[in-house]
Amino acid sequence: MSEQDSAAGHLHRLVLFSDAVFAIAITLLAIEIHPPHHWDGISDLFAKMGVKLGAYAISFAVVGIYWISHRRIFQRLRAANGVLDVLNFIVLGLVALLPLGTELLWEQHAGQALPVYVGLVALIGVAIAVLWSYAAFIGDLTHPTPRPEAIYIALRVALLPGMMCALSFISLVYPWGWAVMAGIIAGLHLLNKRIARTAQIKTA
Amino acid sequence: MSEQDSAAGHLHRLVLFSDAVFAIAITLLAIEIHPPHHWDGISDLFAKMGVKLGAYAISFAVVGIYWISHRRIFQRLRAANGVLDVLNFIVLGLVALLPLGTELLWEQHAGQALPVYVGLVALIGVAIAVLWSYAAFIGDLTHPTPRPEAIYIALRVALLPGMMCALSFISLVYPWGWAVMAGIIAGLHLLNKRIARTAQIKTA
Amino acid sequence: MSEQDSAAGHLHRLVLFSDAVFAIAITLLAIEIHPPHHWDGISDLFAKMGVKLGAYAISFAVVGIYWISHRRIFQRLRAANGVLDVLNFIVLGLVALLPLGTELLWEQHAGQALPVYVGLVALIGVAIAVLWSYAAFIGDLTHPTPRPEAIYIALRVALLPGMMCALSFISLVYPWGWAVMAGIIAGLHLLNKRIARTAQIKTA
Amino acid sequence: MSEQDSAAGHLHRLVLFSDAVFAIAITLLAIEIHPPHHWDGISDLFAKMGVKLGAYAISFAVVGIYWISHRRIFQRLRAANGVLDVLNFIVLGLVALLPLGTELLWEQHAGQALPVYVGLVALIGVAIAVLWSYAAFIGDLTHPTPRPEAIYIALRVALLPGMMCALSFISLVYPWGWAVMAGIIAGLHLLNKRIARTAQIKTA
Repeated sequence: MSEQDSAAGHLHRLVLFSDAVFAIAITLLAIEIHPPHHWDGISDLFAKMGVKLGAYAISFAVVGIYWISHRRIFQRLRAANGVLDVLNFIVLGLVALLPLGTELLWEQHAGQALPVYVGLVALIGVAIAVLWSYAAFIGDLTHPTPRPEAIYIALRVALLPGMMCALSFISLVYPWGWAVMAGIIAGLHLLNKRIARTAQIKTA
Repeated sequence: MSEQDSAAGHLHRLVLFSDAVFAIAITLLAIEIHPPHHWDGISDLFAKMGVKLGAYAISFAVVGIYWISHRRIFQRLRAANGVLDVLNFIVLGLVALLPLGTELLWEQHAGQALPVYVGLVALIGVAIAVLWSYAAFIGDLTHPTPRPEAIYIALRVALLPGMMCALSFISLVYPWGWAVMAGIIAGLHLLNKRIARTAQIKTA
Repeated sequence: MSEQDSAAGHLHRLVLFSDAVFAIAITLLAIEIHPPHHWDGISDLFAKMGVKLGAYAISFAVVGIYWISHRRIFQRLRAANGVLDVLNFIVLGLVALLPLGTELLWEQHAGQALPVYVGLVALIGVAIAVLWSYAAFIGDLTHPTPRPEAIYIALRVALLPGMMCALSFISLVYPWGWAVMAGIIAGLHLLNKRIARTAQIKTA
Repeated sequence: MSEQDSAAGHLHRLVLFSDAVFAIAITLLAIEIHPPHHWDGISDLFAKMGVKLGAYAISFAVVGIYWISHRRIFQRLRAANGVLDVLNFIVLGLVALLPLGTELLWEQHAGQALPVYVGLVALIGVAIAVLWSYAAFIGDLTHPTPRPEAIYIALRVALLPGMMCALSFISLVYPWGWAVMAGIIAGLHLLNKRIARTAQIKTA
C-alpha cells in the first residue's frame, strides 16, 4: 500500500468513525425522554411532554447542522494525520455531551440552563473551525482551496451555528430575533454566490 | 474529485449515517425492557413480560419495514443535496422517537396510547414520501423513473405502513381486519406486477 | 446500475446494517452493569460484581460467536432479496434481546433463568440456520456450494452454539461437560478437514 | 471470489465492526452523567459536575488513544483469520467496559477506584499488544515489517497507554509526574525518528 493510499484510508476510517459517533449521539438524545406516569388524552400527553420534545427537536437540529458541516469540511480534505485525529476527537467529545446538554435544557427551563447549552453548541462550532484551520493552513491536508475561501469557511463554522442557536432562543422572547436570523441567512446566501462567481472567474 | 463523484460520495455517506441511526434505534427498543423483580417459572416470566415483548416485536417490525423502504428509495437515487440532508434528518428524528413510542405502548395498554403510536408510525411514512417526492419531482436526484411509477412509490410509502400498523391493532379486536390486510397485500402484488409489465413494454 | 450491481449493493448494505446492530448489542451488554454503592478494596469490588462480570463475559462470547457465524455465512452469499431482509431482521431482533437475557442471568442466578437464556441463544442459531437454508436451497443467493456442505453448515449453526452454551452451564455443575465439549470441537475439526479434502478432490 | 479477496473482505468487516464498538463505547461514556437536581448559576453547575466531566474527559482521551492505536495496527495488517477475530473481540470486550470503569472513577474519587481503572486501561493495551504479536509473529497477517520494529510496536502499545494513564493520576498528586511524562514522550519521538531513518537506509 503506498503512503498516499494509506492516508486516504486513514481519512476514510476517520469519517466512518465520526459518522458513527454523530449517529449514536443523535439517537441517544431521545433515550432519556420517558412518558409521564399518568396522562389523560393526547392533548394532556403533549402538554406534559412538550418541553422535552421541544428540547429534543432543537438538539436534533443542532446535531444535524453539525453533521452537515462536518461532512462538508471532510469532503474538502484529501488526507488525515495524527493531529487531525486528536482535533476530531475533541469535536466528537463535545458532540457526545449534547444529550447531557439537552437534559439540562428540559430540567430547568429557566434562563440558567440556556447559556450553558448555547455555550456547548458554540464550542462545537469553534472546535470544527480549529480542525478546519489546522487542515487548511498548517497540516496541508485539503484539496486546493483559495486562502480567502478557507478563511471564510473557518469563520462561518466557528460563528454561525452558535449564533443561530442563541438567536433561536432570543427569538422566543424578542420577536425581532427572527428578522436578524433571516437577514443573516440572506446575507450569507449572497456572499456564497459571490464567492462561487469569483472562483469561476479565476478558473476561467 | 469531480462534482459527480462528490455528489455520489455525499449520497453514500448519507446512506451509511441513516443505517447507523436505524440500527441504533432498533437496538435501543429493547434497552428499556427489564426483567420483573420476582417471577416463578418460565410461564410466569412470559406472562409478566408478554406486553413488553409484544410491543418490542411490533416496533422491531416497524423499524424493519421502514429500513427496507428507506433502502429501496435510496437505491433509486443517484445523488444527494442539502435539502435531501434535511428531509432525511426529519425521517431519522422520527425513527429515533420509536423507542419512546414503544414505551408508551406498554405502559398504558389502554386504547389511549395506540393512536399516538400509530400516528408516529404514519408520520414516518409521510416523511419518507416527502423525501422521495422532493428527490423525484423537484431535486432531480433519482435515476430515470417514469412519472406514474414515481407517484405510485410516493403514495405507497406514505400510506401503506401507517395503514398496516393501524389495521394490525384493529385486527386484534375486529378479526375482519386481517381480511382487509390480506386484500391490500394481494392488490398491491397485482399492481406491482402490472407496473413491471408496463415498464417492460415501454423499454422493449 | 445493472440488476446484479444493485443486488450486490443490497447485500453490502445488509451486512453493514447487521454489523451495526451486533456492535450496539455487544456494547449495550455492559451498560446495565453499575458499580456497587459501597465497596472496600479491590477484592470486595470483584466479589460484589463477579456474577455480573461473568454474565457479561458469557454474553460477549455468545455475540462474538454469532457475529463470526453471521460473517462466515454472508461471505458465502452473492446477493440479497426481500425475504433475506426479513429473515435477517428476525436474527437481529433476537440478538438485540441478549442484553435483556444477560440481565435476567445475573438477577436470578438460580437455575430458573438459565433455560430462558440458553433458549434465546439456541433460537438465534436456529434463526441463522433458517436464513442460510433459505439462501442456499430456495432463494439461490449463494456462491456455488455443494449440497452436502450446505446442509452441514445449516445443521452446525443451528445446533452448535446453543449446545455449547448449554454445555458451558452444565459444566459448571458437572465437570464431564468440559470433556463432551472438547470431544465435539475435536470431532468438528476432523469433519471440517474431511469436507475441505473432499471439495479439493472434486475440483481437481 | 479468490481466497485473497475474501481475507481482505474479512479484515475490512472486522475494522468496521471494531470502529462501531469504539464509537458506541465513547458515546456511552457520557450517558450516565446526569445534571444535578438543583444548581444555582453556571459556576455552581460546574462545581457539582466537575468530577464527572473530568472522568469523562479522561476516558474519552483513553478511548481516543486506543482507537488511534487500533487503527495504526490494523493498517499494518493484510488479512484476518479466526484467531484474530477472537483476539479482537477480547480487546472490544474490555473497551466496552470503560463506561463502567468511568462510573467507578467518579462515584468513589478516593484512591480505591484508581488502581481498578488504571488496571482496565493497561489491560486493553496488553490485549492489543497480544493481537499485534499474534498477527506479526505467529499468524503471518501483516504487511512485511522488520522484526525489531514489530517488537517495538508490541512493547509500545502494551506499556505506553497504561503507564501514561497511571502517570496522569500520579501527576495530580506529585507534580514530578508531568516531567516524567514529557521525558517519555520526547524519548519516544527520538526513537520513532531513528527507526524511520534506519528503515530508510535499509530500503535505500
